[in-house]
Amino acid sequence: MLSFACDYAEGAHEKILQRLIETNREHLAGYGSDHYCESAKEKIRKVCECPQAEISFLVGGTQTNAVVIDAMLRPYEGVVCAQTGHINAHESGAIEYTGHKVMGIPQHEGKICAGELEAFLKCFWEDENFEHMVFPGMVYISHPTEYGTLYSKQELTEISNVCRKYKIPLYMDGARLGYGLMSREADVTLPEIAELCDVFYIGGTKVGALCGEAVVFTKNNMPPHFLTIVKQHGALLAKRRLLGIQFDTLFTDHLYFTISAHAIEMAELLKQGFRERGYRFFLNSPTNQQFIVLDNRKMEILKKSVSFSYWEKVDEDHTVVRFATSWATTKEEIEALMQLLDEIGNLS
Amino acid sequence: MLSFACDYAEGAHEKILQRLIETNREHLAGYGSDHYCESAKEKIRKVCECPQAEISFLVGGTQTNAVVIDAMLRPYEGVVCAQTGHINAHESGAIEYTGHKVMGIPQHEGKICAGELEAFLKCFWEDENFEHMVFPGMVYISHPTEYGTLYSKQELTEISNVCRKYKIPLYMDGARLGYGLMSREADVTLPEIAELCDVFYIGGTKVGALCGEAVVFTKNNMPPHFLTIVKQHGALLAKRRLLGIQFDTLFTDHLYFTISAHAIEMAELLKQGFRERGYRFFLNSPTNQQFIVLDNRKMEILKKSVSFSYWEKVDEDHTVVRFATSWATTKEEIEALMQLLDEIGNLS
Amino acid sequence: MLSFACDYAEGAHEKILQRLIETNREHLAGYGSDHYCESAKEKIRKVCECPQAEISFLVGGTQTNAVVIDAMLRPYEGVVCAQTGHINAHESGAIEYTGHKVMGIPQHEGKICAGELEAFLKCFWEDENFEHMVFPGMVYISHPTEYGTLYSKQELTEISNVCRKYKIPLYMDGARLGYGLMSREADVTLPEIAELCDVFYIGGTKVGALCGEAVVFTKNNMPPHFLTIVKQHGALLAKRRLLGIQFDTLFTDHLYFTISAHAIEMAELLKQGFRERGYRFFLNSPTNQQFIVLDNRKMEILKKSVSFSYWEKVDEDHTVVRFATSWATTKEEIEALMQLLDEIGNLS
Amino acid sequence: MLSFACDYAEGAHEKILQRLIETNREHLAGYGSDHYCESAKEKIRKVCECPQAEISFLVGGTQTNAVVIDAMLRPYEGVVCAQTGHINAHESGAIEYTGHKVMGIPQHEGKICAGELEAFLKCFWEDENFEHMVFPGMVYISHPTEYGTLYSKQELTEISNVCRKYKIPLYMDGARLGYGLMSREADVTLPEIAELCDVFYIGGTKVGALCGEAVVFTKNNMPPHFLTIVKQHGALLAKRRLLGIQFDTLFTDHLYFTISAHAIEMAELLKQGFRERGYRFFLNSPTNQQFIVLDNRKMEILKKSVSFSYWEKVDEDHTVVRFATSWATTKEEIEALMQLLDEIGNLS
Repeated sequence: MLSFACDYAEGAHEKILQRLIETNREHLAGYGSDHYCESAKEKIRKVCECPQAEISFLVGGTQTNAVVIDAMLRPYEGVVCAQTGHINAHESGAIEYTGHKVMGIPQHEGKICAGELEAFLKCFWEDENFEHMVFPGMVYISHPTEYGTLYSKQELTEISNVCRKYKIPLYMDGARLGYGLMSREADVTLPEIAELCDVFYIGGTKVGALCGEAVVFTKNNMPPHFLTIVKQHGALLAKRRLLGIQFDTLFTDHLYFTISAHAIEMAELLKQGFRERGYRFFLNSPTNQQFIVLDNRKMEILKKSVSFSYWEKVDEDHTVVRFATSWATTKEEIEALMQLLDEIGNLS
Repeated sequence: MLSFACDYAEGAHEKILQRLIETNREHLAGYGSDHYCESAKEKIRKVCECPQAEISFLVGGTQTNAVVIDAMLRPYEGVVCAQTGHINAHESGAIEYTGHKVMGIPQHEGKICAGELEAFLKCFWEDENFEHMVFPGMVYISHPTEYGTLYSKQELTEISNVCRKYKIPLYMDGARLGYGLMSREADVTLPEIAELCDVFYIGGTKVGALCGEAVVFTKNNMPPHFLTIVKQHGALLAKRRLLGIQFDTLFTDHLYFTISAHAIEMAELLKQGFRERGYRFFLNSPTNQQFIVLDNRKMEILKKSVSFSYWEKVDEDHTVVRFATSWATTKEEIEALMQLLDEIGNLS
Repeated sequence: MLSFACDYAEGAHEKILQRLIETNREHLAGYGSDHYCESAKEKIRKVCECPQAEISFLVGGTQTNAVVIDAMLRPYEGVVCAQTGHINAHESGAIEYTGHKVMGIPQHEGKICAGELEAFLKCFWEDENFEHMVFPGMVYISHPTEYGTLYSKQELTEISNVCRKYKIPLYMDGARLGYGLMSREADVTLPEIAELCDVFYIGGTKVGALCGEAVVFTKNNMPPHFLTIVKQHGALLAKRRLLGIQFDTLFTDHLYFTISAHAIEMAELLKQGFRERGYRFFLNSPTNQQFIVLDNRKMEILKKSVSFSYWEKVDEDHTVVRFATSWATTKEEIEALMQLLDEIGNLS
Repeated sequence: MLSFACDYAEGAHEKILQRLIETNREHLAGYGSDHYCESAKEKIRKVCECPQAEISFLVGGTQTNAVVIDAMLRPYEGVVCAQTGHINAHESGAIEYTGHKVMGIPQHEGKICAGELEAFLKCFWEDENFEHMVFPGMVYISHPTEYGTLYSKQELTEISNVCRKYKIPLYMDGARLGYGLMSREADVTLPEIAELCDVFYIGGTKVGALCGEAVVFTKNNMPPHFLTIVKQHGALLAKRRLLGIQFDTLFTDHLYFTISAHAIEMAELLKQGFRERGYRFFLNSPTNQQFIVLDNRKMEILKKSVSFSYWEKVDEDHTVVRFATSWATTKEEIEALMQLLDEIGNLS
């Protein structure tokens, strides 16, 4: 069975496992005060060219979004995002559980645009009833988005400017940040992200780690007593070394970037293969997630030999599905998929 | 200064005040276990033709929405409503504060339609990822809506049927229910509402009371220990008699209906007056809230002599404003407003 | 049936009802921006000798506690109070519902003492694991306490000093503040309370109002956008005039103090009556709540003719019960109670 | 530097790391629907002799407590535990964050007793004001307790009987369950725990895993849609295989029990060593945590060569500290510690 269902179907990059073994019997202090966490933080500060960055390691994406958003908002504030934003659609209401409204605005292939964002914020502050409404207190974007798309430097700068004008922080969900940074269409660098965003996270779970996300506060703006807030949300690992060692490894010898680049290369091969065989793309994604429109009959046949993800229905006969590559995808798997497509093509 | 800004600009109907005076020195048990609360409940059961109805008196609209929705939902459930629903737009995130997502669906002059509701629910249950989403656990409608519009019996029945098919309760926010019931276009009665909804509230604050809303659970479905839930939300009055006496008075000799009918009569006069003078209506409202499109220059002149509410911007030169009548509006006030319009008309 | 069950068994002082009638048809802006609210605030500032005081009118005691505490605490902070504090014992978890721990410390007839408070706070900050604990973020006291007792000026000053030393606000629940101020043993004045506390509330519900509590922030420390926070908690009255008019009346011509003094006078008569008849007091309360130890047989007989409150069991044969006087208690009622006691005394 | 500070100072048992490597490239479905999770669940069901057990893997202890307690309580319910219970003292208010009160009752060396529990519950239901209080909705115990002590079968049975009588679930926090089961004084078995408790968790983090706790619902009582609840709390791992593989390994060939027994053996050596050298024990702990009373001068000297945990102050000159052994402690470490004690003994 071939697997393109997601980018979290395997364990971790072998260098990480190797490092876990090497360090296993070392006695380390709990809760993140060990030297691996320190070393990982220092490496992230360097690669972000952001010496003042304050970094915290959390376990998963939904958890990270809930903790960061709740920690930075005042109780009466909500978080603005694309209608399709992960926090709005696929996190079981984890943000609302913390008491905050998720305020969806229009999306364009998963992205928000600065103009519509500004119109939304302006409208709020001009509304004479704003005291009876939820205050927009943060802007959330994902990069790559849930549709695999990327913000250009221009777009990101404009959004950042709107946030600064309205004095609300810009938060980037980087669950798949590596794939965004190494895309052939990547237009924005990690230091630029650190400059333009107030807080963002570097995703580990989907980019080679067993688990773990590194939250980066870039403007001396980590909320006071953040450790306690993390604990209160049930998000503080006792053996936080597990996260420190993984990120330390990922940011040694450019591993995070190398394995991300590999996933992109595999995605480009996959894309090319589907394109050559005349498949329709739901949109043009420059990253590791590819959205294909399949006719349902073909989808059912394919399902028997390869796993992929249901995305949404197009009409009675067609469905959008997602094929994801990852740091772990091999060229052989792509080739096997293409052979499968050829066989199915001949069948129909 | 004339006042059409809202339907809560005065105190209470004089019969209510009279009754408060008459009963003032009576020693009554606290928290709603007095005979006035009992009597009011009995009268409401009768007028709803719903002998099994369980009734609870709360203080205000936002509070009522938060308490009822939170009490009826499981933690991972959200409440579905029109994008323009009061709970979605103008309650400062009071629902999200209780941990639940407000799930906006398209609105048509403030109303949702059964077809789109069903499509939304169907889509959820067909989504292979639904376990990672917020479960739709209740449908909220307001009647009259935030735009003064009304559901027909047909529309309400269809929505109710969808809710039953998907086994989720239908909740009606009746902050202005009296005005809806006495509208000339009213198509649905109180007993029919009790039949079609699982829970609804009869608004007092905006229909002649100092404060107070009567929540009616119609299907033996009041959540267990509801009194404790109400207390936990800070919504339990020690002197709940204040609510019992008011509702007892409102439902004696049809007072609630008589004063609502008066507000409708005044709204019809106001409507006719605006219409005759060539004003543009934002939409056709058959209840006590009338939405007029004003050009901004005229709006500024009017503001000096009459209060009304800002609703939304149409374009650079035009604004939608709301004129509301109430149980307290007098014919003289309508006439004075018309005279004012005539003067302004001559000016421009 | 005589009634000494509580201090909220009647409606409101007649002057308040009178004022509601006089102002009833006045068109007033909603949500507290009317001139009665303004006037009431000004009068409270004067009587507190605290010109910078910021005041907000809420509806009931539990609600007020939940809103104030939640608004002033950071998410990871809890509120310290006596084990017997109302927020800890009798508010259905309304504080925990807002996400904050109530941290009980020892009580002495309902009061906390500065020494034990300081020991508690010191211990917290000295604990090497404090980052894994709830931070004490506020001190709550009630005055009078749940047992009717009062803080002396000395005691209150010491508690206030501890709070300042540890930089956490001191909050006084004044649900029965009037009765505390007019007690014969009152040692602390309203201006002194305003000086020593960071925030407190002046109770209306139990001191002559239909409902309503006036929260007073004394140190320019009202949380930003407090109106929105109040709304988010479902605590914002549309017709907030109802609260403004009541407090304006209560603080006109010393009404609040006069009626409180009357309740104290009645309590002293009641106390004397019980004492003369040899009844045992659970403790010495100088305010309107009196706690008597009854033998259960006598309690059952008394219950038939007079209402009072169950407090707690002493042993198999004895129970502590509460007799409360209020602004509405008459001398005739006290006399009737005494006559009843005499009859029962003769019976046994 | 010797390390006895805690039982989470190392990575994981080497067999776990080995298994992670062997399974690393296997494509597995996310969120726990993989065959390792299934296999681990099956093994746990067997070892608990509880075929109907429903099992869920979470990441850490505080998280597990918050998710399980919140999922099982109604909103107006609280959880009863020892004053020293971990949820009451050292979880940064994670339970209150979910809206529930933690209701402390007296503790005896970390344990609650059935008699006091029943008195507490009885008192609640007899209180005429119980509707204004937090309902006790669950009993939480830890086994071993925070002080290393253990419940006897008799004690646990009595507590369980009280819970059944009052119809509230009994929940056991088994963060260190292995050490409890393998203690020389262990009186209760895993199947007995499964029989007597409604839900409990088997701790991994402190017993040889990198992270992870296995929650066991024993009475067909897993809350509906528990996966979604877990996700809503930010507690759902995408690569839940990480937990499944670890527990599968721990419950293969009795590894969990073997390594727990080793920790106990080390603790007994440590105990004996301290005892022989005349040290005072704070209490008698039969598990891996040993609480020693040190004089502060000696404590400061020891600190330079060995890490241990501050527990609490005894008086100005003495402090309780904790020495913990674990699955990873070696005999050589114990010997080195004893040598250190000898040297210090000679010094003083």
